[in-house]
Amino acid sequence: MMYNENEPTDIQRVSASPRGRLITFEGIDGSGKTTQIEKLSARLVQSGIPVRVLREPGGTAIGEAIRRILLDKAHTGMCMETELLLFAAARAQLVREVILPDLENGKWVICDRFLDSTAAYQGYGRQLDPDMIRSLNQLAVGGCWPDVTILLDLPVQAALARLLGRQDKQDRLDHESVAFMERTRQGYRQLAQADPDRIIVMDAAQQETELAEQIYHIIREGLGT
Amino acid sequence: MMYNENEPTDIQRVSASPRGRLITFEGIDGSGKTTQIEKLSARLVQSGIPVRVLREPGGTAIGEAIRRILLDKAHTGMCMETELLLFAAARAQLVREVILPDLENGKWVICDRFLDSTAAYQGYGRQLDPDMIRSLNQLAVGGCWPDVTILLDLPVQAALARLLGRQDKQDRLDHESVAFMERTRQGYRQLAQADPDRIIVMDAAQQETELAEQIYHIIREGLGT
Repeated sequence: MMYNENEPTDIQRVSASPRGRLITFEGIDGSGKTTQIEKLSARLVQSGIPVRVLREPGGTAIGEAIRRILLDKAHTGMCMETELLLFAAARAQLVREVILPDLENGKWVICDRFLDSTAAYQGYGRQLDPDMIRSLNQLAVGGCWPDVTILLDLPVQAALARLLGRQDKQDRLDHESVAFMERTRQGYRQLAQADPDRIIVMDAAQQETELAEQIYHIIREGLGT
Repeated sequence: MMYNENEPTDIQRVSASPRGRLITFEGIDGSGKTTQIEKLSARLVQSGIPVRVLREPGGTAIGEAIRRILLDKAHTGMCMETELLLFAAARAQLVREVILPDLENGKWVICDRFLDSTAAYQGYGRQLDPDMIRSLNQLAVGGCWPDVTILLDLPVQAALARLLGRQDKQDRLDHESVAFMERTRQGYRQLAQADPDRIIVMDAAQQETELAEQIYHIIREGLGT
């Protein structure tokens, strides 16, 4: 759903068990995920909540090795199906090796990209079969779905303007067209429409401190300890 | 089908196009695939047929990088789903980067393991969902199915006896139980029963020169130029 500070959010999944929470951040490159994850993580830690921040693909030794294959500039000939399967492989490992044990131990896990990235980028961006992607995501995550997903929504031109100054964005994954980014952004918005209880759309064009405040508010209200 | 030298084989897929042929070899470790592939390849080359020999996982730069992840002894914590997805990723790349262009150019491609390995090892050996494996294999190979598959069938104890002397078999993939190998062998046999026109079961316990002769005969008769 689209966040509106004047209305209460619907996410009320407070669990009676000591299980942690899985929070994922999604959005096109340049939407500000890294900054907002840092801010949320710091606030939660200040509140005494044990937090783990993860990034996809990666987060495990196997996942980082897969990440290196995906980002290697020599691998320009990688086909779409291979890319899709490598992301799913890294995710499968991350879920079973790190996320599930952490949640079991009461940690709050914040993940920089998760299964919605595959649906948005490969499904909408690259236009691969959505049924096949759903089935792959199911295999990768098992029953481990996010408690809440923050979608940082930003027009493509604004995201590109932010990216222009960043030297670390020169890898293979960023050699994509503006049209691809546009399809991906619209894909994210459609995913949010289809799953409004889980995916919260945030206006990522606003000032970052204000955005961070809103996100913290949503997370504490919706997922409170 | 089970090969019987007194009966003609059913594989009559001689194509009118100059397209090459895709021949895959399957069987548990120790069944003699490498030896038989070398012998078949040499005979076909002698007959003037352009041949490419490939191994799975691998055969491309991306696939070899994936192979290193799969065989890395440090990766003992790899979960079954990750393994499955990595094999599929390497296969997807091999098909599109090498096999399809080679077939288009009239080459005969001989592949040491292909999609039936996933069905036998992950489906029967590790007992993952067969429907999901079929759908993954479909994604990985697209429409590129083998023209013929030679299944080298051997009792597990005989395969283990052959493997005992081989130092190169100390990697992670071989730390499997005898029960796993038995399920895998029986899985291969069931796959052959389900697709008897494509998968030819050969008695791999017999003398290797005689076996090579039979395989060459089947390939030339069934797939003749």
